[in-house]
Amino acid sequence: MQTPWENRYAQRTQRMGSSAIRELLKLTEKPDLISFAGGLPAPDVFPVQAFQEACNRVLQEQGTIALQYSTTEGYLPLREMIARHTARFGIEITPENILITSGSQQALDLLGKIFINRGDRVVVEDPTYLGAIQAWNAYGAEFLTVPMDSDGMVTDALEEALRSGPKFIYILPNFQNPTGVTLTLERRKRVVELADRYGVPIIEDDPYGQLRYEGQHLPSIVNLDRQFRDNCNICYRGNVIYLSTFSKILAPGLRLAWVIAPPEVIRKLVQAKQGADLHTSTFNQVVAHEVSRNNFLDGHIELIRRVYRERRDLMLAAMDRHFPPEVDWTHPQGGLFLWGTMPEYLDAADVLKTAIEYKVAFVPGSPFYAAGGGHNTMRINFSNAIPEQIQVGVSRLGQVFSEKIAAKIVAG
Amino acid sequence: MQTPWENRYAQRTQRMGSSAIRELLKLTEKPDLISFAGGLPAPDVFPVQAFQEACNRVLQEQGTIALQYSTTEGYLPLREMIARHTARFGIEITPENILITSGSQQALDLLGKIFINRGDRVVVEDPTYLGAIQAWNAYGAEFLTVPMDSDGMVTDALEEALRSGPKFIYILPNFQNPTGVTLTLERRKRVVELADRYGVPIIEDDPYGQLRYEGQHLPSIVNLDRQFRDNCNICYRGNVIYLSTFSKILAPGLRLAWVIAPPEVIRKLVQAKQGADLHTSTFNQVVAHEVSRNNFLDGHIELIRRVYRERRDLMLAAMDRHFPPEVDWTHPQGGLFLWGTMPEYLDAADVLKTAIEYKVAFVPGSPFYAAGGGHNTMRINFSNAIPEQIQVGVSRLGQVFSEKIAAKIVAG
Repeated sequence: MQTPWENRYAQRTQRMGSSAIRELLKLTEKPDLISFAGGLPAPDVFPVQAFQEACNRVLQEQGTIALQYSTTEGYLPLREMIARHTARFGIEITPENILITSGSQQALDLLGKIFINRGDRVVVEDPTYLGAIQAWNAYGAEFLTVPMDSDGMVTDALEEALRSGPKFIYILPNFQNPTGVTLTLERRKRVVELADRYGVPIIEDDPYGQLRYEGQHLPSIVNLDRQFRDNCNICYRGNVIYLSTFSKILAPGLRLAWVIAPPEVIRKLVQAKQGADLHTSTFNQVVAHEVSRNNFLDGHIELIRRVYRERRDLMLAAMDRHFPPEVDWTHPQGGLFLWGTMPEYLDAADVLKTAIEYKVAFVPGSPFYAAGGGHNTMRINFSNAIPEQIQVGVSRLGQVFSEKIAAKIVAG
Repeated sequence: MQTPWENRYAQRTQRMGSSAIRELLKLTEKPDLISFAGGLPAPDVFPVQAFQEACNRVLQEQGTIALQYSTTEGYLPLREMIARHTARFGIEITPENILITSGSQQALDLLGKIFINRGDRVVVEDPTYLGAIQAWNAYGAEFLTVPMDSDGMVTDALEEALRSGPKFIYILPNFQNPTGVTLTLERRKRVVELADRYGVPIIEDDPYGQLRYEGQHLPSIVNLDRQFRDNCNICYRGNVIYLSTFSKILAPGLRLAWVIAPPEVIRKLVQAKQGADLHTSTFNQVVAHEVSRNNFLDGHIELIRRVYRERRDLMLAAMDRHFPPEVDWTHPQGGLFLWGTMPEYLDAADVLKTAIEYKVAFVPGSPFYAAGGGHNTMRINFSNAIPEQIQVGVSRLGQVFSEKIAAKIVAG
């Protein structure tokens, strides 16, 4: 007889839906559709030539190391490079503070695995990164949402959430996914103080921190936590677990990211990672190290900033021209996304259906709200489409919004 | 104040120890120590040149695809290649039956995630693969162990375990890790029948199936399950989930493996993988596909077989010469490992300490016993060390055993 698989799955699978975004993306794969839906880097800035040279050098000089099993913690020269890079932003750490993961998504999964018991509460921004919701749903997390405004998480509302005894606070301070909003310096300090006062750790997710197109770089929360503790041994032992990635500054196809945390947390994450995938690809770690040596990344990040800044500016200008006054949007200082808000009477999923007919796409905002809501919001990516597509796509979107609003007014 | 991290971890971490093997391996990293402890392929058979050519072609011809995000299911041409390869061994499947994972360890983790509720029973061979115990401990599995003999899992003892209502049976039929033992054809058929009778799915883990050095290839359990069902649509929908990997036939540093399963199980695994690491490295998938095209693997696997067969034969001959009659060992027909049994009065961990002083190492067998036991057993790898090291290492081991036995006889 056939196995009734549906009845064999574990309880945790009940909250594992396929990502709404991924399902929608399938509708947007038509070649003539202009998609602002994904969170993809621009392929034209991938340093293909540098990769080719690095692969050749690595395979010639250390091929048997790069193709062999390696340690769970990650390739030591790469961790050393990350420690040096981190020191430039004001926080001294050692390789003992670093775990290499298979993308930041794996870091979120491993953090869920070591921290979350079924029913544990975790504090998130409202809206927050969809991948974190997905990862932690599998461990039975309950989400305590804290509202955001144009200065980031509203810290006045954070304190009440902290009094509910959450496992940790999850926060994306720079050019947040999905809203593009940046947490102010004052609020960053307040988050560190409140977290310390209630003894709740912080997970700081910072994939885009280096992709700032205007304004001044703000210190990371892990950095402020270090200052708060005035603790100057070089092995960081504070209250913050910091995540970043090579996906946005080098190439997402490598699946390479890192966690910075107190050494005892790294050791626990290493145990979890042993059971999850043994270690991250040795080859990709050695090649990424080879590509990044000799300050290659500095110049490369400058190139990415130039390209994305131009696309952001182009998109904002086109929105000014084409979007009806009933639609609002954020003006991010960096990152990959901006966030749009339609009138309450419009539903973004419904608008998306029409937009796809017009051959343009975005992501409806509601899946990013861990506790529901946001039916009239949307995430719009400006990094992936080329300038001409941005012009045409925004104009099409403007037409869709105007039609939807006009139809409502006629009907109303 | 400092965060008391130890008190914040989830309950599941209580069963997450660092792998005993990995802790021991740290002791064996001295350069002049001959280690039979790891499960590493021979680095001298890595096709470094072929990789270099493939990297160059991939980056020249499709660099922007290889470095970009890709689908969770895996790179379609690679899945198509695996489907064609699988068909040669008698089971027709489509890419819908295949998920690419970040090594087989990830497949074990994802299977635990979708199937195991805390307290669920899973049937394993005694001893079994340590990585499966680690992966499933995190989900709170209880292990029902079925003894093995020189013909593999004792199927007469399997039926009682099946009557306990387990979630699945986990079995490594070919040159098992850790014992090197192969399940006979008769018992394979019996496992398929019993699993069907009790409605319990099978997870067949087959990392070494193609590394046979003597005797005839036996059909895989998934293949026998197909025949049992006499079900000839090409989308496999039977009772078996089959795992294999590129780690032993190409290079483990890529972290590339695959799962074959009914399409509905693949879809559930894809949901779990989205939250776990989004997808496996695009770059490694595209490069592995490029390396493997034009039947490169056929010749390469032939080379691996030749090298490993020679090492196995050398090791068995050296054991005959150097090991005292009180020590027994298996004669595997393939794979990477053989399994030794010392007299009951010796403890393998204690013997290992002495062996390390003699600059030779193996892995004590007890961690492979999910329900405890096996204190006098050991796993010995014959793929990684070069012939001269095998000769010297086995002679040193023989000396250690003889001394330990002599000391016991004097003391006794």
